[in-house]
Amino acid sequence: MQITVLAGGIGGARFTRGLLHHLRATHVDAEVTVIGNTGDDIRLFGLQICPDLDTVMYTLGGGISEDRGWGREGETFTVKDELAAYGVKPDWFGLGDRDIATHLVRSQMLAAGYPLSAVTAALCDRWRPGVSLVPMSDDRLETHVVVDGDEPGTRKAIHFQEWWIRHRAGIPAYDFVLVGVDAAQPAPGVLEAIRDADVVLLPPSNPVVSIGTILQVPGVRDAVRTTAAPVVGVSPIVGGAPVRGMADACLAAIGVETSAAAVARHYGARVDATGGPSTGGLLDGWLVHDETDAAAVGELTPLGIATRAVPLLMTDLDATAAIAGEALALAETVRR
Amino acid sequence: MQITVLAGGIGGARFTRGLLHHLRATHVDAEVTVIGNTGDDIRLFGLQICPDLDTVMYTLGGGISEDRGWGREGETFTVKDELAAYGVKPDWFGLGDRDIATHLVRSQMLAAGYPLSAVTAALCDRWRPGVSLVPMSDDRLETHVVVDGDEPGTRKAIHFQEWWIRHRAGIPAYDFVLVGVDAAQPAPGVLEAIRDADVVLLPPSNPVVSIGTILQVPGVRDAVRTTAAPVVGVSPIVGGAPVRGMADACLAAIGVETSAAAVARHYGARVDATGGPSTGGLLDGWLVHDETDAAAVGELTPLGIATRAVPLLMTDLDATAAIAGEALALAETVRR
Repeated sequence: MQITVLAGGIGGARFTRGLLHHLRATHVDAEVTVIGNTGDDIRLFGLQICPDLDTVMYTLGGGISEDRGWGREGETFTVKDELAAYGVKPDWFGLGDRDIATHLVRSQMLAAGYPLSAVTAALCDRWRPGVSLVPMSDDRLETHVVVDGDEPGTRKAIHFQEWWIRHRAGIPAYDFVLVGVDAAQPAPGVLEAIRDADVVLLPPSNPVVSIGTILQVPGVRDAVRTTAAPVVGVSPIVGGAPVRGMADACLAAIGVETSAAAVARHYGARVDATGGPSTGGLLDGWLVHDETDAAAVGELTPLGIATRAVPLLMTDLDATAAIAGEALALAETVRR
Repeated sequence: MQITVLAGGIGGARFTRGLLHHLRATHVDAEVTVIGNTGDDIRLFGLQICPDLDTVMYTLGGGISEDRGWGREGETFTVKDELAAYGVKPDWFGLGDRDIATHLVRSQMLAAGYPLSAVTAALCDRWRPGVSLVPMSDDRLETHVVVDGDEPGTRKAIHFQEWWIRHRAGIPAYDFVLVGVDAAQPAPGVLEAIRDADVVLLPPSNPVVSIGTILQVPGVRDAVRTTAAPVVGVSPIVGGAPVRGMADACLAAIGVETSAAAVARHYGARVDATGGPSTGGLLDGWLVHDETDAAAVGELTPLGIATRAVPLLMTDLDATAAIAGEALALAETVRR
């Protein structure tokens, strides 16, 4: 069985960890491919930093800081403090010492000409995440955010990480622009992993700047729409708010309500009301949180999105594995 | 008063710290320029590392590890351990976390096109070493060491740091080759600092791979030979052994005895026995250690090298300042 997951950072990584736990517990022999978002990549101090890829790699490889959800456990910030002592900018990025080794290896391999997908595989030789972790593209892509400019009435674009970390998504975002997308290609294996999958899962990652970014890579959205596999998503919105992170600020920027149903409508149904193919939708199935969003079942089902209300809080590994199990079970009910 | 010092790492840095202390204590208004060896520079993990420049900068800026003599006080080695966990090589270089920030700033500025001399000045904005620290060249130069090859009867060249640190200078060295020297130029200000100096000092640095390397940069040896300033050196050899480091292994490689007198003869006298200019010598004056090497006075003076036997152990700042004071006093006796 081939399961393909489109993942951002913390939500996607933890969901995938639960998925692997579920597969082991149920003795299902499955290959899992994670297509990782690289739109939040940033180059700082000559280091190529891939926060979402690293979050997946560290989470599945046992190196993640469970408290923070990103970066390494037992992390120190000596280099960051020293860089600040030199007065170099930016000083708002959480660049940990353990993490820096990853960035040094990656940056040196990239400089030597290896594509990011090969570099990621090499890093995973150490972490053994139990999945094939593939960046969405080997091309350098960066999400930039359109915000108010310095002069009244003007706007400017800043790197996603500056908006997300420095401003904590607290200044209005008018749009997200994936710089480099026109010339980008999916990394080797990305389209095949979607096309040849038995199940495609959209974990509770940010629908705009994580999964939405992956879907912008040329060919990826079409691959999801046309794969023979069922496509099942897990709502990142519970009770009208993101479980974690600041997806609400991202959804507001693109005019989507922060609700489990609205995110599903934003992804769209793969079939229309007659059961025929829709014009652009992605979802066969959708999981919402039972205690807060059960009403979405009645709303979304007529739209062609098979929706189930189940416990969606990833409070521990078992709870997360149960969510993954529900997603796989839902996939079987919508399999054509 | 302009004092120019040709410095390697620990010996040169500590001597210069003593020199500054002496100048302050004696209320001498002097500008000190340190021309730093960059032959031991090494590029590792995409970082351009300048051990001798950093030793001078940290020592004079109050950031050095007094115990080790190199690197930062309070240093940690998290990144190094993590790189080893990835299995990347080499694993023998002592790359500290605090130190890495310096290398990141340097490497990023070099990549942006700034010459090493400008980068060094920028780093010194933080450290305020109290001297003008100028690399011997803005061109990339690396000392390589000719050693036995892997097959019997063959030889190969390895980076100086590999010989020095990995092998602790414990395998036979047949020669030292300064890679890149043919095309190298002295950094801006290097020749002027020697030409316009009131005193030129050769501190107790390694005469082969530190001062000897600086002297190989085109124009530097001639500048030392022809400056109007007196040139005074301090023996790095005391009682037939290096005070610190492994200069004996370097001297052996070039066929020079490990003695205070032999190093002086290796540098050579600027004047011949008649008082006229010699053919290639550098020294007007030479300090040797009184308790062990006083015999060198009688040996070297007839060769035209004014030699004094004084306490040469840099046991503390006051003792080191006294050595610098003796060097300056000797310079006055040989001033033309």
